[in-house]
Amino acid sequence: MDDSISVLCQEYAEFVEKRDWGRFHTPQNLAMAISIESNELLEEFLWFNNPASEEVQKDDDLVDAVSDELADVVIYAFGMANQLDIDLAQAVKEKMAENEERFDEETATEISADLDEWQ
Amino acid sequence: MDDSISVLCQEYAEFVEKRDWGRFHTPQNLAMAISIESNELLEEFLWFNNPASEEVQKDDDLVDAVSDELADVVIYAFGMANQLDIDLAQAVKEKMAENEERFDEETATEISADLDEWQ
Amino acid sequence: MDDSISVLCQEYAEFVEKRDWGRFHTPQNLAMAISIESNELLEEFLWFNNPASEEVQKDDDLVDAVSDELADVVIYAFGMANQLDIDLAQAVKEKMAENEERFDEETATEISADLDEWQ
Amino acid sequence: MDDSISVLCQEYAEFVEKRDWGRFHTPQNLAMAISIESNELLEEFLWFNNPASEEVQKDDDLVDAVSDELADVVIYAFGMANQLDIDLAQAVKEKMAENEERFDEETATEISADLDEWQ
Repeated sequence: MDDSISVLCQEYAEFVEKRDWGRFHTPQNLAMAISIESNELLEEFLWFNNPASEEVQKDDDLVDAVSDELADVVIYAFGMANQLDIDLAQAVKEKMAENEERFDEETATEISADLDEWQ
Repeated sequence: MDDSISVLCQEYAEFVEKRDWGRFHTPQNLAMAISIESNELLEEFLWFNNPASEEVQKDDDLVDAVSDELADVVIYAFGMANQLDIDLAQAVKEKMAENEERFDEETATEISADLDEWQ
Repeated sequence: MDDSISVLCQEYAEFVEKRDWGRFHTPQNLAMAISIESNELLEEFLWFNNPASEEVQKDDDLVDAVSDELADVVIYAFGMANQLDIDLAQAVKEKMAENEERFDEETATEISADLDEWQ
Repeated sequence: MDDSISVLCQEYAEFVEKRDWGRFHTPQNLAMAISIESNELLEEFLWFNNPASEEVQKDDDLVDAVSDELADVVIYAFGMANQLDIDLAQAVKEKMAENEERFDEETATEISADLDEWQ
């Protein structure tokens, strides 16, 4: 499997190490970087009217731009995991398990009903 | 290997599907969610003075909170990839290859020199 | 006129001074705070489907929450202006004058045409 | 007084009206715009090491850039106030009064003590 999170994290650690950029990669700075990249991603959709995924998919340039910005977000997330020795895949799995319980059928239905008023 | 991005994306797709939340998971909404979660992550460091990773690591509660918020960011990134049929691991690898070239030794050294004035 | 930006900035400077919080109010920290508060504002609209202003206005609780989060954003913007001796009203006027020129009739019409494809 | 918030809001309302951009200025879109501009502001400080205000002030180009991005944030905040008929100066004053009470001497001292551990 060549899409292992830990392998990609390791590759990114080497990229940073090779450039001696570890001294800039403090957790606070990486958190800023993640927010900034997230907002470059968000900007791709600014002033749109919440188009469906199918509509967005028809625009190859947009999907490429989104893919690119999304990668930036995820790469800095890998950087944060590297700096704090966080097992990111494990953290994701734990959060997913938590969400699976937290949003049980009843809760999920309630949330959906609230949100449907705004659709 | 149990930390495959595509496997985790698939698990998240099932979580969303089971709750019929796909109708809320438009790309624009997911981009908003990623920004919001990124800022919950950022808030963990607000008013700090850029502590080194080693300092942050000593605070177990903080690392747990960061791990949790980081997972939220990454999970919504998986959601975006799912909605737009983006191969996220591939996007990350492409961006890393691009960065490898873009930040060659000379450029990286220049950037470091500029940033060192602010350290 | 009791809605003068400089008067409000001065009041906020006194609030910060009285608590001796100036040492936390570095420009970088305030920029983080502005982003974080902006995202609390954004969260008020998460998973909505871009409702018209008139729809949002009907929900008093939502307008109150938005008003509250918007104030947080603006207060930290005042904090940044205070820290860097920026005349914020002047900065706003200059930017508005710049935008007035930059988005002339032709440019504005082009932008609108592009955006209308996503409405 | 020529730095009245309501006067500046009114000027911005005319700018938007003249370009017929009201249809894009939904509250959700403006919240996105505020977050995006906040992060362009944040980007001005990315990878810095939390320099003091006095240090930042020495860099005229940086202060100009910050001033410019800060204006963008505030202008979109005016846009949000316009769309939802929020009296922004009043909202700011109410929040400041609330903060004045909420962060009484004891609370403020406690917060400072917690934060001082991270300085």
